[in-house]
Amino acid sequence: MIHSIPNASIVIFGATGDLAHRKLFPALYQLYQKGHMKENFSVVGVSRKEYSHEEFQKDVYGAIEEHTPGAETEKIKKFASHFYYLKMDVTSEKSYHDLEELLNSLDRDYSTNGNRLYYLAMAPSFFGTIPTFLKSEGITNTEGWQRIVIEKPFGHDLPSATELNKEIQQSFNENDIYRIDHYLGKEMVQNIQVIRFGNAIFESIWNNKYIDSVQITSSETLGVEDRAPYYEKSGALLDMVQNHMLQMVMMVAMEPPGELKPEHIRDEKVKVLRSLRFFNEEEVQKNVVRAQYGEGKMKGETVPAYLNEDKVDPESKTETFVAAKLFIDNFRWTGVPFYIRTGKRMAVKSTEIVIQFKQGPMALYHANKEQYQPNLLRIHIQPDEGVSLTLNAKPKGDTSDLLPIDMSYNNQATADMNSPEAYEKLIHDCLLGKSTYFTRWDEVALSWEFIDRITSAWHNNPDASLTHYESGSMGPVEADEMLQRDGHSWWEPTNLRKDCD
Amino acid sequence: MIHSIPNASIVIFGATGDLAHRKLFPALYQLYQKGHMKENFSVVGVSRKEYSHEEFQKDVYGAIEEHTPGAETEKIKKFASHFYYLKMDVTSEKSYHDLEELLNSLDRDYSTNGNRLYYLAMAPSFFGTIPTFLKSEGITNTEGWQRIVIEKPFGHDLPSATELNKEIQQSFNENDIYRIDHYLGKEMVQNIQVIRFGNAIFESIWNNKYIDSVQITSSETLGVEDRAPYYEKSGALLDMVQNHMLQMVMMVAMEPPGELKPEHIRDEKVKVLRSLRFFNEEEVQKNVVRAQYGEGKMKGETVPAYLNEDKVDPESKTETFVAAKLFIDNFRWTGVPFYIRTGKRMAVKSTEIVIQFKQGPMALYHANKEQYQPNLLRIHIQPDEGVSLTLNAKPKGDTSDLLPIDMSYNNQATADMNSPEAYEKLIHDCLLGKSTYFTRWDEVALSWEFIDRITSAWHNNPDASLTHYESGSMGPVEADEMLQRDGHSWWEPTNLRKDCD
Repeated sequence: MIHSIPNASIVIFGATGDLAHRKLFPALYQLYQKGHMKENFSVVGVSRKEYSHEEFQKDVYGAIEEHTPGAETEKIKKFASHFYYLKMDVTSEKSYHDLEELLNSLDRDYSTNGNRLYYLAMAPSFFGTIPTFLKSEGITNTEGWQRIVIEKPFGHDLPSATELNKEIQQSFNENDIYRIDHYLGKEMVQNIQVIRFGNAIFESIWNNKYIDSVQITSSETLGVEDRAPYYEKSGALLDMVQNHMLQMVMMVAMEPPGELKPEHIRDEKVKVLRSLRFFNEEEVQKNVVRAQYGEGKMKGETVPAYLNEDKVDPESKTETFVAAKLFIDNFRWTGVPFYIRTGKRMAVKSTEIVIQFKQGPMALYHANKEQYQPNLLRIHIQPDEGVSLTLNAKPKGDTSDLLPIDMSYNNQATADMNSPEAYEKLIHDCLLGKSTYFTRWDEVALSWEFIDRITSAWHNNPDASLTHYESGSMGPVEADEMLQRDGHSWWEPTNLRKDCD
Repeated sequence: MIHSIPNASIVIFGATGDLAHRKLFPALYQLYQKGHMKENFSVVGVSRKEYSHEEFQKDVYGAIEEHTPGAETEKIKKFASHFYYLKMDVTSEKSYHDLEELLNSLDRDYSTNGNRLYYLAMAPSFFGTIPTFLKSEGITNTEGWQRIVIEKPFGHDLPSATELNKEIQQSFNENDIYRIDHYLGKEMVQNIQVIRFGNAIFESIWNNKYIDSVQITSSETLGVEDRAPYYEKSGALLDMVQNHMLQMVMMVAMEPPGELKPEHIRDEKVKVLRSLRFFNEEEVQKNVVRAQYGEGKMKGETVPAYLNEDKVDPESKTETFVAAKLFIDNFRWTGVPFYIRTGKRMAVKSTEIVIQFKQGPMALYHANKEQYQPNLLRIHIQPDEGVSLTLNAKPKGDTSDLLPIDMSYNNQATADMNSPEAYEKLIHDCLLGKSTYFTRWDEVALSWEFIDRITSAWHNNPDASLTHYESGSMGPVEADEMLQRDGHSWWEPTNLRKDCD
């Protein structure tokens, strides 16, 4: 179903930044070249730098050329002509008067009906300031809709997030606040609900009677790169777990909604967090592993330990890896551990969800215990996209052995070059007012409440809780041991693409 | 697990016939060249023709060369040197004395320990005579084991089958009688139990709570060819349904056995037949469709109607197609129709089992009713071998539509050239005394009891029950209508191999 996007002006705060160049401009260009956005739109880029409209348009042109192979020169030029630049000091009232003037004239030129989307792609310290001014200076006071997109991090703990949220909500309704988590824009994360609710064979067994455990891995091969100033303060817990990892847990664990409407779905997601067991300090020690990468080899090259990375405090206790065993205390999931792990400088780049099903009576195949693998449903999020199912079959020519086989569906195989990126889909949804794949305040609040207990347990016991792992490994031995205690082990990420070789 | 076959003599009655040449010699050769049979075996070919040992060995050599591409000359010669020929009149006592003499000398030459396998690959009229003489003339009276393999048809109705069985059982124990149904030797038929019992995700939903219906199709493109003299008397019901089709129904519907032992499995299979609803005449009219092929086009060529085939009675009422709706009245299957169909001169050659699962609440995807396909598990028996699962997923880039996708496992892909044929596996099993994939008397008796009611209903009403279909179609419209009355339709056979194109 293609919905056409209403006329609107889009204001990007942080328009000279990395996110705007790598993700937002290319995403908007895709919406434009696919015809989802017609000619009635304008984009206002805002930053502190001194730029003319023309310079900014050149900038946009360059970003599209760099990040969109095959884009046509004429098309990009036409697209870039919708872009305008405004130098602003976002903490100064006066700047907003300039913005209003520009937007009012663009409203007329592009017949936007006063529809305005504000995209905050800049340092989180301004997330509260900007909405406040937008309202106080009357910019949000038009006939059209007003929506605001907030990038992560949304606060750094529950109190700061609550404070920030209060500020934003003074200017925007909850319905108009689009808290972005780009994992929710990924094809296969969105596919989780279709795999579950569109397939009775899976939803019928999607509970603790048939599922043994769930594993969610999101591993990166990169180190901290040039992000140390940010990462030193966040670490893997705030950077990955509070948002992306918990979002995937919610998608896997949620009850089926009555209808596939945004609020129905978000209602069900937040219920998962309400059933999530919040840990006390002792439970954190037992169920959460926190580690930092040491030196190691990646593709034959030695890479430095986190402590030796640029701009990292040599005494840093920042974790680059988190593994946890989560419990969802409701009727569906009691007794089913959710194992999650995420880290930098790991052996492979992979985001994958593995549903491990319970086994049948071992007696039948007791002679083949080692070959008798549990059934696994793998949802491959990235870099591969697809689904695979591990089954047991009979090897050719023998009537008593078992052979594990894989059946798979490779989403990539059906993808054309135009397959939409997460940002494209999320901006598209936002322009249409579809909030399903954005995070509602109650989700954010509960996830911080869960995370804060872990942060505080670590804070009270900083040494005992930090362990280390070699770069190029799949994490510290403590993460393996946590599963071994339950008779489990991590399933190694798999590659879909081999199947048709 | 490779078990080594004990030393033995194999007597093939009907050694100059088609089955021996096309299937039995090549199957034995495979067991030999793979090393399952060492040098301590002999094969005695029996028929009415005048042959020397040498001529027979040449014959065997020719059969291997023709049906086993790539076989090595030296290896075939060595193999053929184990073959001996005996001209016999199987109705004459004296012939058996010659046989005994030969076997006794082969026992010594090959140290067979008196182990003897008798393979009846000849006209069914001798199936009773031969075992009787084998016993009365003392041939079965050795120190070793005595086993007998009986080809189909095992009788032509319950009384004749009972009579035949009584004769055989006077000479052989039920345990030593191997009634062959070569469908039970097929890879994917044997795989059914592993797919079910080796995969908790399937066995958990293998019942009327989750399964909507089952379809089993076995379609041929060939017509009656040169088999009219036999086929005119049997028709599709006796040729395919009484044995192969009902065997597949049993494999799909059986309860899990306590252990994977022959008697446990056969006990469970026969229970299916005990729960199978036996039809009265009215039910036959309603639930069984009987048809004969008319003229039609196959691959662009016009092919004749059955009635115009060589040696077919121009008034023949013989059916070349049967479709039926079966009911298994037990706790697992009440309410789940088993639709079966088989026929000649159909559009494609395919044997396939389709498990159709119930759908989830339509409300969730009511906007996409047409795209919302039920989940199907297909077991591809031939010519493809494998498993595939039809699921619903989300098309790329859209968040509300559904896209049916296929995940599949192609058994062929892992097959080497040496992948065993049904006969090879069954003879192998028989030589090892493994009777799992042979038909026990109580299965045969019950299947005849079921079939006889259909035969008799047709006999009492020969005109009303025979319909026609065009050659090259998927059968008569009546077979489609039978499913339409239930809101179902036949799933077209699919081809696994396209998946990796």
